[in-house]
Amino acid sequence: MAKINGNYSQLQGSYLFSEIARRRTKFISENPSAEIINLGIGDVTRPLTPSVIAALHVAVDEMAEEKSFRGYGPEQGYDFLLEKIVEVDYRARGIPLETNEVFVSDGSKCDVGNIQEIFSSDSVIAVTDPVYPVYVDSNVMAGRSGKYNKETNRYENIVYLPCTAENNFTPEFPSRKVDLIYLCYPNNPTGMTQSKTELKRWVDYARKNKCIILYDAAYEAYIQEKDVPRSIYEIEGAREVAIEFRSLSKTAGFTGTRCAYTVVPKEVMAYDESGNAVSLNGLWNRRQTTKFNGVPYITQRAAAAVFTSEGQQQVRGLVDYYMTNAKIIRNSLASLGLSVNGGVNAPYIWLKTPKDLGSWEFFDKLLNEANIVGTPGVGFGQSGEGYFRLTAFGSRENTEKAVERFKTRLSL
Amino acid sequence: MAKINGNYSQLQGSYLFSEIARRRTKFISENPSAEIINLGIGDVTRPLTPSVIAALHVAVDEMAEEKSFRGYGPEQGYDFLLEKIVEVDYRARGIPLETNEVFVSDGSKCDVGNIQEIFSSDSVIAVTDPVYPVYVDSNVMAGRSGKYNKETNRYENIVYLPCTAENNFTPEFPSRKVDLIYLCYPNNPTGMTQSKTELKRWVDYARKNKCIILYDAAYEAYIQEKDVPRSIYEIEGAREVAIEFRSLSKTAGFTGTRCAYTVVPKEVMAYDESGNAVSLNGLWNRRQTTKFNGVPYITQRAAAAVFTSEGQQQVRGLVDYYMTNAKIIRNSLASLGLSVNGGVNAPYIWLKTPKDLGSWEFFDKLLNEANIVGTPGVGFGQSGEGYFRLTAFGSRENTEKAVERFKTRLSL
Repeated sequence: MAKINGNYSQLQGSYLFSEIARRRTKFISENPSAEIINLGIGDVTRPLTPSVIAALHVAVDEMAEEKSFRGYGPEQGYDFLLEKIVEVDYRARGIPLETNEVFVSDGSKCDVGNIQEIFSSDSVIAVTDPVYPVYVDSNVMAGRSGKYNKETNRYENIVYLPCTAENNFTPEFPSRKVDLIYLCYPNNPTGMTQSKTELKRWVDYARKNKCIILYDAAYEAYIQEKDVPRSIYEIEGAREVAIEFRSLSKTAGFTGTRCAYTVVPKEVMAYDESGNAVSLNGLWNRRQTTKFNGVPYITQRAAAAVFTSEGQQQVRGLVDYYMTNAKIIRNSLASLGLSVNGGVNAPYIWLKTPKDLGSWEFFDKLLNEANIVGTPGVGFGQSGEGYFRLTAFGSRENTEKAVERFKTRLSL
Repeated sequence: MAKINGNYSQLQGSYLFSEIARRRTKFISENPSAEIINLGIGDVTRPLTPSVIAALHVAVDEMAEEKSFRGYGPEQGYDFLLEKIVEVDYRARGIPLETNEVFVSDGSKCDVGNIQEIFSSDSVIAVTDPVYPVYVDSNVMAGRSGKYNKETNRYENIVYLPCTAENNFTPEFPSRKVDLIYLCYPNNPTGMTQSKTELKRWVDYARKNKCIILYDAAYEAYIQEKDVPRSIYEIEGAREVAIEFRSLSKTAGFTGTRCAYTVVPKEVMAYDESGNAVSLNGLWNRRQTTKFNGVPYITQRAAAAVFTSEGQQQVRGLVDYYMTNAKIIRNSLASLGLSVNGGVNAPYIWLKTPKDLGSWEFFDKLLNEANIVGTPGVGFGQSGEGYFRLTAFGSRENTEKAVERFKTRLSL
């Protein structure tokens, strides 16, 4: 008799963004004339850049001719892309890296969801709170979470590291032993970053305790301040303990084009039952070659175009566009007396809800009064309660309209 | 201390195709002037069809304009593609299906590798032998295989259903209780099919024993004979027990373009610990929405173009081309007195090795004498020992050259 994976029954309700979509759809059906502005899901709105478009057309034409047609490529990605990534994102910034330490994929969501597979099923995981839900849910599915506790809105066996205004959104070390630590900087959802000193503390902690840091740097391109680390490998010793996730989704507007990559340095080790060190690079390679078939050739050509000097200039234009939106939101909301975080090195503004409203209360209020969709902070974890995420990914027009509505339509 | 997933240590050596690549590379380095013909890995060689190319260019241009740009799409696939799939591949053939029973993905390899996640970790799996390695390896990684036994070349807890000339490549029912049954027709690697009567026996067996059939129909487009079932849902009752995997890789030359889909009818149920029936459609949806971010928009437009009447005609041209190759290989080898199977409704010819040579012995002989790369049958499982797979995916010129070399250069 076929039995289901019982861990799925521990998953809580629908995925955050599904619930938002549900409330939004309901509101629209009841208010068909309302013009909704979506500052909720972190999805880009600017078109692909000219270099990317040109590379796509060329690659499509290659696929039309027998002599240049490409079938299966290497599961890890083509060298022409791996070399660009290594050169532009790492070596040019003083970080040594080999192409066989980089694994191209169809998304960081997939990679951060799948990475837990190569670790023991009894691993204890630590996540910052609030947190990108995939880190938690993928571990719930794998049976690492223990039971969900309704009172605390937390799983029994997951270690939560609260990040709130009280500790300046800087997580403290876990109070008990953990094996895997998920860190995300610039942070989704808070939009906050960590200094090199703070990250160094984590790398040292991981080395001392033989933990692995799963470092999600999907928003790295949004860093504006010079002293904020863009890669965890800027930190001494990180090559021994950290896996880094990078994505073109937000960097180059690839959310609908799908290309990301994961860095697994050869020195990163975890341990088998007998205590022998095992290279995670080899395990991830085996995972990917067994269960993944590589990113489309044309997509990899598009991605490679991002790393040319023309391509880099163009995607900087995208980032500048969104970061101008971030500044508009941040400044406008601050001028209304709201407490805003993030938005300086990240496309997310993490708002303290006014009058101590609950996150979902504020969601409904904002939708009803200003017809703006945002993301309730509590959807990212209990420590997000009383916070609210707005994204800078809208058009300039919508962003300006939205802040105008905050001023004129929202009763604060 | 971070521990690895110990199940990985049970995986055997490198993945089959890596070992082939290794021997091939070695041979080339020692024989730099040899002109190798690859009839090994099942990868297509014909370019994408004109409808697909045209659709890609249009979609790329859409991505260049703000008003037509697409970011995140539905993880399950866009309606414009789902509707085509349902209409052309199912309803037009008398099989009722809803769009929310179809999940578009970036490959059947991924889907057949990931599907085991939604089942209990103590599920007993049955596979035909020989078998596509991903079914086995993904379950080894998940801890369902038990130990590998070197003597038998099999895993202790996996139930193998031998398919050899002796039983006309028709698997018998498992000798003990199983939960999940992987079937693949047209079969990779044997190239053989099952009649409706034979498939009906399996569906009845699954219904009676509450098993799930994981039905890999990636080669469905190659079926030439009218009475061979193209979908398991042609069999009465299959909607209650079967998940079907389909791919555009071989159907439309998408191995480097990446688009596939998986059908999970709403009636397919597995059971929780208390014996309650749970819909697998919901579980798979949760898995995909949590760990997958959908197929690129442009790829989905390309896939949709395959399902237009012009697109269908063009991909039939691809299939005809490869099936002519299959006929050339089949007939030529048979005329040399070799025992050939498959190649009638599938692009694979499953050869009995001459003089009872071992599969790898024949691999080396064929490489050395005729400079042809094929796939050793034993790489697909112990019952594949003494067999050898040739694919019809080469160019016509190479296929004809290869059979000529069989005649003139191979000492039989």
